[in-house]
Amino acid sequence: MSNNAIKPRPIPTLLLIGLLPVGAWFFCRPFMEPVPAIPALYTCLGFSTFAFVSTLYLVPNLGPVLRDSKVKLYGRDLLKPYADPIPESLGLVCAAVYISCMVLFIPFAFSSSMRSFSTKRREGISITELPLYQLSLYLSSLLSILIATMLGFLDDVFDIRWRHKLPIPIIASIPLLTVYYAERGNTQIVVPLPLRGILGSLVDLGPLYYVYMSLLSTFATNSINILAGINGSEVGQALIIALSVILNDLMYLPWPMDLRIPIHLLGSNREVGVGGVWSAGMAYGSRELVERHLFSLYFMLPLVAVCSGFVYHNWYPARVFPGDTLCYVTGMAFAVVGIQAHFSKTLLLFFIPQIFNFVLSCPQLFGIVPCPRHRVPEFRQEENLLYPSRVELKQPLKPLTTAALRLLATLRLTRLTVDAKTGVITHATNLTILNFFLLHLGPLREDTLVKVLMTVQAAGSVLAFVVRYVLAGLVYDGDRR
Amino acid sequence: MSNNAIKPRPIPTLLLIGLLPVGAWFFCRPFMEPVPAIPALYTCLGFSTFAFVSTLYLVPNLGPVLRDSKVKLYGRDLLKPYADPIPESLGLVCAAVYISCMVLFIPFAFSSSMRSFSTKRREGISITELPLYQLSLYLSSLLSILIATMLGFLDDVFDIRWRHKLPIPIIASIPLLTVYYAERGNTQIVVPLPLRGILGSLVDLGPLYYVYMSLLSTFATNSINILAGINGSEVGQALIIALSVILNDLMYLPWPMDLRIPIHLLGSNREVGVGGVWSAGMAYGSRELVERHLFSLYFMLPLVAVCSGFVYHNWYPARVFPGDTLCYVTGMAFAVVGIQAHFSKTLLLFFIPQIFNFVLSCPQLFGIVPCPRHRVPEFRQEENLLYPSRVELKQPLKPLTTAALRLLATLRLTRLTVDAKTGVITHATNLTILNFFLLHLGPLREDTLVKVLMTVQAAGSVLAFVVRYVLAGLVYDGDRR
Repeated sequence: MSNNAIKPRPIPTLLLIGLLPVGAWFFCRPFMEPVPAIPALYTCLGFSTFAFVSTLYLVPNLGPVLRDSKVKLYGRDLLKPYADPIPESLGLVCAAVYISCMVLFIPFAFSSSMRSFSTKRREGISITELPLYQLSLYLSSLLSILIATMLGFLDDVFDIRWRHKLPIPIIASIPLLTVYYAERGNTQIVVPLPLRGILGSLVDLGPLYYVYMSLLSTFATNSINILAGINGSEVGQALIIALSVILNDLMYLPWPMDLRIPIHLLGSNREVGVGGVWSAGMAYGSRELVERHLFSLYFMLPLVAVCSGFVYHNWYPARVFPGDTLCYVTGMAFAVVGIQAHFSKTLLLFFIPQIFNFVLSCPQLFGIVPCPRHRVPEFRQEENLLYPSRVELKQPLKPLTTAALRLLATLRLTRLTVDAKTGVITHATNLTILNFFLLHLGPLREDTLVKVLMTVQAAGSVLAFVVRYVLAGLVYDGDRR
Repeated sequence: MSNNAIKPRPIPTLLLIGLLPVGAWFFCRPFMEPVPAIPALYTCLGFSTFAFVSTLYLVPNLGPVLRDSKVKLYGRDLLKPYADPIPESLGLVCAAVYISCMVLFIPFAFSSSMRSFSTKRREGISITELPLYQLSLYLSSLLSILIATMLGFLDDVFDIRWRHKLPIPIIASIPLLTVYYAERGNTQIVVPLPLRGILGSLVDLGPLYYVYMSLLSTFATNSINILAGINGSEVGQALIIALSVILNDLMYLPWPMDLRIPIHLLGSNREVGVGGVWSAGMAYGSRELVERHLFSLYFMLPLVAVCSGFVYHNWYPARVFPGDTLCYVTGMAFAVVGIQAHFSKTLLLFFIPQIFNFVLSCPQLFGIVPCPRHRVPEFRQEENLLYPSRVELKQPLKPLTTAALRLLATLRLTRLTVDAKTGVITHATNLTILNFFLLHLGPLREDTLVKVLMTVQAAGSVLAFVVRYVLAGLVYDGDRR
């Protein structure tokens, strides 16, 4: 270890101690009068508070244990002037805290003993616990997340090759699929209005629906994993996607206030009403929709908690790295809620930057354009700035490669270096969203680049909400599954 | 690696190829007429066949991967003249095969689509699938086993200290306990006849029942882990316990034949009838009992399969080691079936040698007698024999230690070495069942010792069946929970 070892970021002890009574209050609230409409939601907030505190505390304390173990879980930060060993795979700690919370939460969400605390009838929808068939969905989701953790950690330890990694999320999604099948899960999709004349209003995808579900897990997991390489990028994306999912879920809960957004003024043919004792937000009184979105909230709130705790230590300049484990866990958690709570199309809308990055990466992933070991931006130490990294192109180029590169350059997605004498393309910037930002915004500091990424991710979510709640009204009616 | 590297045991390819159509037949059988009474049992046998084939094939192929990885998962065999690195932690491969089978099996055991194949009414009990509430028990059991795998592997990788290891099974049992609680699992126990005057026929243990369940997982896991150290001992014990559980389960299935054992001739006041279309074996027509024991069979058959595949490579002289992972997985699987299928007392009877070894070890585990790092028997290379290993006692001895050692020596559980001049005890043989065997049977070869252990384990199971089905009639009536 070098002498200029960068110290772990100090833990804000006062904040942690201050949060303990807050967490404890959330645990006590369901047992106090008046009993809230959804008592387990308070318990979930309590667990999330403790998950945040635990992650914030455990990550810097367990980092050195992983670094100094015989597995030597550490790495150099490629975009820094120093060569200190930075503890790696701390996603394992996040996963452990997350799964512990999810397991301990089971009696609060599913046990009928919670029911005895709400004897009085109240107006509107109140949900003391989720139905027991949701318990098997919950458990199968946890199994999938746990298998993703296990495989992510094995990947960190054994360095599984890129092509062998791709099917890992499919393996992890098997518990999800088998239980979905055993419970005769819905495999129908709602047909957009313009196609209803041909296909009818519902189409049963049958086995294809299972293919769709496993592809969704593969996409959610790997798309986060390939948009990586700068401090805070993996956990930052996960955090914003999780917050977007939570915002979407909250719109379906039975809020005590009534709020109607005059969306029709913006051109929609529907009115969007949020809240109202009987309407239960966007669920319009459907108990099933409330339960589905509660299910999703129960997975997302602790995820936001562990990601927030982790990002504190992973933020530029990073004191710890997440490893593949974090990408697998968060990706699988998103796939799980999208599938089980039936909003996979909305979920995909929150992945707009990931989809862009994936599509942009395809020529390199599928070998049309050569792909180097690392595609992270290039760090110029003297300026402390990141530049787009370039891949060297071995001559002669295949015609397909030349054509693809010329097209990408025309679309301003890459920048080519052309030999002035011969006119052949010698270099191209790597096809990632990070290099794309640097291409258009000029060289940036690493922390600025991650802020750009997070801003774009947040802007993508805003766009997603517009598409989902304004534009979708043009191709779908209210009949959602 | 030394030159005299011992080669992996050759895989019996012909056997493996021959087993493939056997496995395939088990998969097809439920779809053929006449439909069997329990179609999923055939599917389970099919999965078990493939699990056996996969383990037998994968263990020697993945062993070198673990050995040569950066984690360096290998160890020296302490009881051999050679120092070759033997691949360690292959229990991970067993666990992976086992859990994959268990997950893929879900639609066959719990899906109502199996029902359509058995439209005809038949005599007696026929179970096309288990009820859905058992699905959450099944999933929570899988979660517990998976957490045990994860923690076992972390233990192998990070070498967790002995005292920190003890609570690991408690953590792994939490999914089991929380789901048991959420489903309002039974916490009553049947009171033995002599105590019914005082306690009534049923006592509700309440929260104590959960303590009992977590202690059972801790015991089942750690007791296998401490009876270790010679080739084949861990997996050998697990195999015989699993076979005993299977034998016990089979007695409760609806067999087509009728067989009555004249147990009353041996002094029991009851007749034991096995089989009969309506009686469903020992279940006496109780569908619930059949379902519980099916649940147990579904966990035990694939476990026997992976253990059998593994023992082939782990048998003396061992080509691979199981690592802690295997002990955790098998121990947790036993705890799970004992708890979920409600035969924990019977299960404990199958652990007689482990209980003996644990009680014998207590003075060393709790520091009354000093405990060295390893307590495996001593290998004398020139004779190729194992002798009881001894612990050196630092002077002066505490009075408690002296008293305990003298008592143990009187009971012939240890042999003391006394200084002829001063009369003080200088050495004592280590307090394990393996040293106990060597003390009484004389020095043995390692393969003989493991055969002695397995014979004792099997004899313990015979005793367990006598206690359970003959002697238990004296203190319990037929009213079992």
